[in-house]
Amino acid sequence: MNPKLTGRRTFLKGVAGAAATMPFVSSGAEAAPADLTINDAIAVIIKGIPKPASRETVDTVKCGDPTRKVTRIVTTFLATYDVIRKAGELGANFIITHEPTFYNHRDETDWLRSDAVYAAKRRLLDEKGIVVWRFHDYWHAVRPDGILTGVVKKLGWQQAGKERIFTIPATPLRDLAVSLKQKFGSPSVRFVGNPSQSCRTVGLSPGAYGGVPQITLLGREPIDVLVCGEIAEWETSEYVRDAVAEGKAKGLIVVGHVPSEEPGMEWLVEWLKPKLPGVKITHVPAQSPFNYV
Amino acid sequence: MNPKLTGRRTFLKGVAGAAATMPFVSSGAEAAPADLTINDAIAVIIKGIPKPASRETVDTVKCGDPTRKVTRIVTTFLATYDVIRKAGELGANFIITHEPTFYNHRDETDWLRSDAVYAAKRRLLDEKGIVVWRFHDYWHAVRPDGILTGVVKKLGWQQAGKERIFTIPATPLRDLAVSLKQKFGSPSVRFVGNPSQSCRTVGLSPGAYGGVPQITLLGREPIDVLVCGEIAEWETSEYVRDAVAEGKAKGLIVVGHVPSEEPGMEWLVEWLKPKLPGVKITHVPAQSPFNYV
Repeated sequence: MNPKLTGRRTFLKGVAGAAATMPFVSSGAEAAPADLTINDAIAVIIKGIPKPASRETVDTVKCGDPTRKVTRIVTTFLATYDVIRKAGELGANFIITHEPTFYNHRDETDWLRSDAVYAAKRRLLDEKGIVVWRFHDYWHAVRPDGILTGVVKKLGWQQAGKERIFTIPATPLRDLAVSLKQKFGSPSVRFVGNPSQSCRTVGLSPGAYGGVPQITLLGREPIDVLVCGEIAEWETSEYVRDAVAEGKAKGLIVVGHVPSEEPGMEWLVEWLKPKLPGVKITHVPAQSPFNYV
Repeated sequence: MNPKLTGRRTFLKGVAGAAATMPFVSSGAEAAPADLTINDAIAVIIKGIPKPASRETVDTVKCGDPTRKVTRIVTTFLATYDVIRKAGELGANFIITHEPTFYNHRDETDWLRSDAVYAAKRRLLDEKGIVVWRFHDYWHAVRPDGILTGVVKKLGWQQAGKERIFTIPATPLRDLAVSLKQKFGSPSVRFVGNPSQSCRTVGLSPGAYGGVPQITLLGREPIDVLVCGEIAEWETSEYVRDAVAEGKAKGLIVVGHVPSEEPGMEWLVEWLKPKLPGVKITHVPAQSPFNYV
């Protein structure tokens, strides 16, 4: 399903239909509305979120039948094979993923037609009868950005700033990298810059924010360090390397794409619960796939 | 300069002009032809290389005056501030870089107009009177690929295979990662997969080869492990994570973009010397910019 095609009319019809027949069990909180379909749930989620900036959103249903009734929802950074397996064990038939399921941004699958890894993943999804829906562009379009809100909560920086700029007690670059490694639960964190450089004003860009936006943020005068998820290694890291060689006090900390955005999909559970009362919603972390030597 | 505009005619004129007045000092090997301009040298380099696959090559002059005579050539992975400084100390006025100088693939600079890091780099380049020319698309268009040839030499795999597929003595994935870390001189190497998985058939894709080509190479039946420079963290690493969860013996080793391609720009010195006799050519390594915690 393309959410752009889910007009206001469709949404109202879906939700009204669900509301009319919404039978709660006595305890209330944990009961699922018996008639709420996956399409209904998607409509509830995107209601009120501004349209994503990109004209063609990637926030579409990637597999499965969204006209089925929701049994349980799993949120995750990325619907890996293990996350799907776990969702099945939990009795969930609806996974909300932030990143793609089939290894490319648009989840195109023609090029994977004879690929054994893809085939086995599709098989598992079919067996479990699971719908995967991507929630990327809309979640970033929420104000403040949904991922960022979860990350700021995780870091405990709610009072430290707003949007993407935060002020922390002066901390040496290397110590800040160690502290972020612990907070994000990342197996390893890389940084560029002088390890003892003092960091006080921090720019925050989880995920793969892009070289030009990362560098533009970092180039602003007061920013000492940019904390990001992922970079292209001929862009932001080279800008910071040059800045340091020129004698400027700039640093870059790269915590990894998965650790940097996972808190945003964990926070989605809390954001979603009041919108879908009675629906069971669980976060299943994807976790970093990397080992380091 | 756009090398696409450097026609055969311009090339012949330049080289003939240089050859007619080529005064070697007595030792021969280290003397520079007195009249060889940077444009002439570029024409000699791209003579005989097949046209790059991309219609608009990024292999253009990024700064400086290429009509000046060559004093000395420096090859590097990326013309960092420090590489430029070192080139100046060596008396070189021509840097051949593989990757961009101004933090984006097309070296566009409008967005950097008021950026202090960019301004200082330009100032250094102007002060030293250095021409930077990118040699990316053409070097990859050489058959076999120029970067790959240098990397295979570095690994000592000349007899182990061809193109991108090599056969090595069976090695556990983790041990292979450690060995590659040492050979590439990378400060840290990450891998995805079972650390004890046996690796015998290796796919090799230095640099940022792209998710679809990386996954297509890795998906071929006999390949146990892909060794690459850089990935997008929602593509190749997630494919391998799924493969392993499905019980398939596949691994991924990510050595870093700089370490993975630098040997190709070191090898360029040897490749270039017979084509530009008498010209001093030196490799100045950019080296990885990362620290790890």
